[in-house]
Amino acid sequence: MTEAERRATRFAFDSWSPPYLRPILYLIGGMLCVLGVAMLAPAAVDIAVGNDDWQAFATSAVITTACGGGLIYFARVKLDGGLTLRQAFLLTPLAWSAVALFAALPLYISDFGPMRDSFTNAIFESVSGLTTTGATVIVGLQEAPPGILIWRAILQWLGGIGIIATAIAILPALGVGGMQLFRTESSDRSEKVLPRVREVAAAITIIYCGFTLACILAYWLAGMSLFDAVAHALSTISTAGFSTYDNSLGHFQNPAIHWVAVFFMLTGAIPFVLYVRLFQGESDPLRNSQVRVLLAFTAAAVLFMTFWLTLSGRYEIGDALRFAALNVVSVVTTSGFASADYSSWGNLAVGVFFGLMFVGGCTGSTTGGVKIFRYEVMAKLLRSYFRHLLFPRGVFPRTYGGRELPDEVIHSVVVFFSLFFICYSIITVALMAFDLDFLTSASAAVSALSNVGPGLGPVIGPAGNFASLPDPVKWILSFAMLLGRLELFTVLILFMPRFWRG
Amino acid sequence: MTEAERRATRFAFDSWSPPYLRPILYLIGGMLCVLGVAMLAPAAVDIAVGNDDWQAFATSAVITTACGGGLIYFARVKLDGGLTLRQAFLLTPLAWSAVALFAALPLYISDFGPMRDSFTNAIFESVSGLTTTGATVIVGLQEAPPGILIWRAILQWLGGIGIIATAIAILPALGVGGMQLFRTESSDRSEKVLPRVREVAAAITIIYCGFTLACILAYWLAGMSLFDAVAHALSTISTAGFSTYDNSLGHFQNPAIHWVAVFFMLTGAIPFVLYVRLFQGESDPLRNSQVRVLLAFTAAAVLFMTFWLTLSGRYEIGDALRFAALNVVSVVTTSGFASADYSSWGNLAVGVFFGLMFVGGCTGSTTGGVKIFRYEVMAKLLRSYFRHLLFPRGVFPRTYGGRELPDEVIHSVVVFFSLFFICYSIITVALMAFDLDFLTSASAAVSALSNVGPGLGPVIGPAGNFASLPDPVKWILSFAMLLGRLELFTVLILFMPRFWRG
Repeated sequence: MTEAERRATRFAFDSWSPPYLRPILYLIGGMLCVLGVAMLAPAAVDIAVGNDDWQAFATSAVITTACGGGLIYFARVKLDGGLTLRQAFLLTPLAWSAVALFAALPLYISDFGPMRDSFTNAIFESVSGLTTTGATVIVGLQEAPPGILIWRAILQWLGGIGIIATAIAILPALGVGGMQLFRTESSDRSEKVLPRVREVAAAITIIYCGFTLACILAYWLAGMSLFDAVAHALSTISTAGFSTYDNSLGHFQNPAIHWVAVFFMLTGAIPFVLYVRLFQGESDPLRNSQVRVLLAFTAAAVLFMTFWLTLSGRYEIGDALRFAALNVVSVVTTSGFASADYSSWGNLAVGVFFGLMFVGGCTGSTTGGVKIFRYEVMAKLLRSYFRHLLFPRGVFPRTYGGRELPDEVIHSVVVFFSLFFICYSIITVALMAFDLDFLTSASAAVSALSNVGPGLGPVIGPAGNFASLPDPVKWILSFAMLLGRLELFTVLILFMPRFWRG
Repeated sequence: MTEAERRATRFAFDSWSPPYLRPILYLIGGMLCVLGVAMLAPAAVDIAVGNDDWQAFATSAVITTACGGGLIYFARVKLDGGLTLRQAFLLTPLAWSAVALFAALPLYISDFGPMRDSFTNAIFESVSGLTTTGATVIVGLQEAPPGILIWRAILQWLGGIGIIATAIAILPALGVGGMQLFRTESSDRSEKVLPRVREVAAAITIIYCGFTLACILAYWLAGMSLFDAVAHALSTISTAGFSTYDNSLGHFQNPAIHWVAVFFMLTGAIPFVLYVRLFQGESDPLRNSQVRVLLAFTAAAVLFMTFWLTLSGRYEIGDALRFAALNVVSVVTTSGFASADYSSWGNLAVGVFFGLMFVGGCTGSTTGGVKIFRYEVMAKLLRSYFRHLLFPRGVFPRTYGGRELPDEVIHSVVVFFSLFFICYSIITVALMAFDLDFLTSASAAVSALSNVGPGLGPVIGPAGNFASLPDPVKWILSFAMLLGRLELFTVLILFMPRFWRG
């Protein structure tokens, strides 16, 4: 365990008291200040092109920074004592909700589009951005002011680095969803690589920025305008999926751009801590089992879909490969870009893409969904179980990454799977109560929980958007995006009465 | 453990050899003889009404009994040594497939309807009958000869008692899907109640026949013709769902008949071993946790649907309760009768009925599906896990029925859930490859796996049938029905290469 993690688990039974909330408010204040400063970027862009919208961003920047500064001042506290377990559980959903709320502010007060009149739409777009989902309520992105477009991209980029930080610094310490597996792993190794979580975080931030620059350059060289290159790079490396065009990457009839997107979405789907080790000469990401399974699975799905598209006469083999690669990789990495309306590739494609939405990338990356390592753990359990059935007296140890898989981790993963499917079912039925059809409801539910973005079918499919859905549905989906992004537990535990007792 | 179970687990590592298959063939031979004799009943019915179809049944009876007798003679063996684990695994799917094959014979050679020309249709109808599923390929049941109708009902009735026997005598010994929970329970108690499995089986058979007679009487008193009463009673007590009318129980605009059906479907969904204990004055089924959860859950679902039907203005409250009760109970108990086309009750109803298809009744009853006790075990795991999250050093024992739940049982249940969802997903995508839409494919997959019967949507919903589906789809669904009926493991283990090694 690193020092920060030891602190986090130190007190589990402390009682509620006003000073208890202070470290939480202090940290949220800090995040709001960062967010407020980030709002200056879209303001600058709008000023540069002479768009009046810069005022919305400037106003929001002032309000957000003021609130953030106020919180810091009000709650000022030394964080040397670290966070208790309960504080960490409380911090995670509270911080993400607060940031999403303030991030929606410029969208709400700006003069553009469907968010102007509707608090619901502003929140939906903001949550969809921050959680790197990429579902949008905007129709006519082409006419949107550049400030709004770049703000959406920045939200996704911030959400991407935010979830990597959460997955490395907080979730393993909380021991949710099998993440304790990465507690031991990262701490054992990090003592050799970099002594402290803070330094790992710094290294990851540098790498994240580096990849972003590389992606901007690649998109630009492939033929995008600089603005489009920046906007798309910010939402590609964060496997997020907001585009500046209604028909997403389908706008660009340029194979080079599509392959750049495929490459960087995959880059964003790999645990960033592996890149740190790679640059330290410590290990090769391609030898990590999670990465290998992700790449092998994605390749198989792409080949299958290429085969199907060719066989059914929809595309020639070259185009089929390109369309299959971009859309399959986009869904598996929970990005949500599209280069074609795969909803119209026949029922088999609908079924396959529906299934792909449950997969997700690697833990510690910017992807959402169930994630590869949990499928690996389940596969180990199934394998050992079937052997045990046949040889009841045999001993079949379960290992992962060369170590024994403790029962605690297996239970943790199992509980994650059950909660994922329970939430998925409840949300689906809840959406159907608003008389949405089965495919729309089910695909919206899994797409939101997995932070993919588009659903399936004519309404919310890759060729559609979420604008026409009723307001309560947008709130349910916003909640689902946060729930999925924060790996379920950290949100659901707040609904336990015991959590709130002294 | 009872003596028979001790035998079953005695040898796990014995090698393959010709005598190895003899006990299996011997037992299958016995079952075929029973089946052959049962064919005389529809033959007699057809003779009574002067229908030429009696020849198909008489011919099949001769062939089936001859094959059964031949197997018994060829494989003659003393069963005192019991079965080994591997023999028991092999026996279960082999016996059910063989019986389904011969049961399809009279349907195939008879002169009636869609099964005459089509081996596929005959097998589908036979498997659907034996597995107590109740999905049909026959359009125009009203015009079907009575022999065919009564044969379909007899298949369901035999399938019902067959699965109770399998669930009591074989599955607990194999230790699949958490069934080992009932190994200890039933043996501990049975030593007091009845000393041997064979006697429990005899008692259950008597109770099953008693309930069937009571159901016939009740249907008849409620206003059915004697023929309809017999046909429906056979498929009600076995929670199976074949009717003698295209629109199922909706044919009878008679509330009394509907409530009789509700009562006896629920009767069939309760573990039959509890009735044995009840009649021995040993215990009260209503104090069993599985039974209580089933009844409470069903009541809640019925009330919810009643509320929805009244609120949406579809029925008045009295009718709403009756329609909700029959159709909800029918789906939860995996019967598959319908008194209305609930597919047309709006999208919320579609979602709810889709979810209900995953539930199932109690283990040791005639119902299919995941079954209540597995949900109970998962709930215990979730509950203890959330407490553990909050209090990492606390100890939260998991108990079921007053005993500790061993990790082995939990893993077993978890593996069952994962296999169920894996099979469900694969079958759904497989059906979509034949260009069936999402709702049809997904509902057909779960309906077959859970042995419910009808799916959802216009094609295979409660107002439709499976006649128009392509042949390969019917084969996939027949396989799915057997897979679900035999609790997945006993079929899937045959696909393990290790199973076949010496």
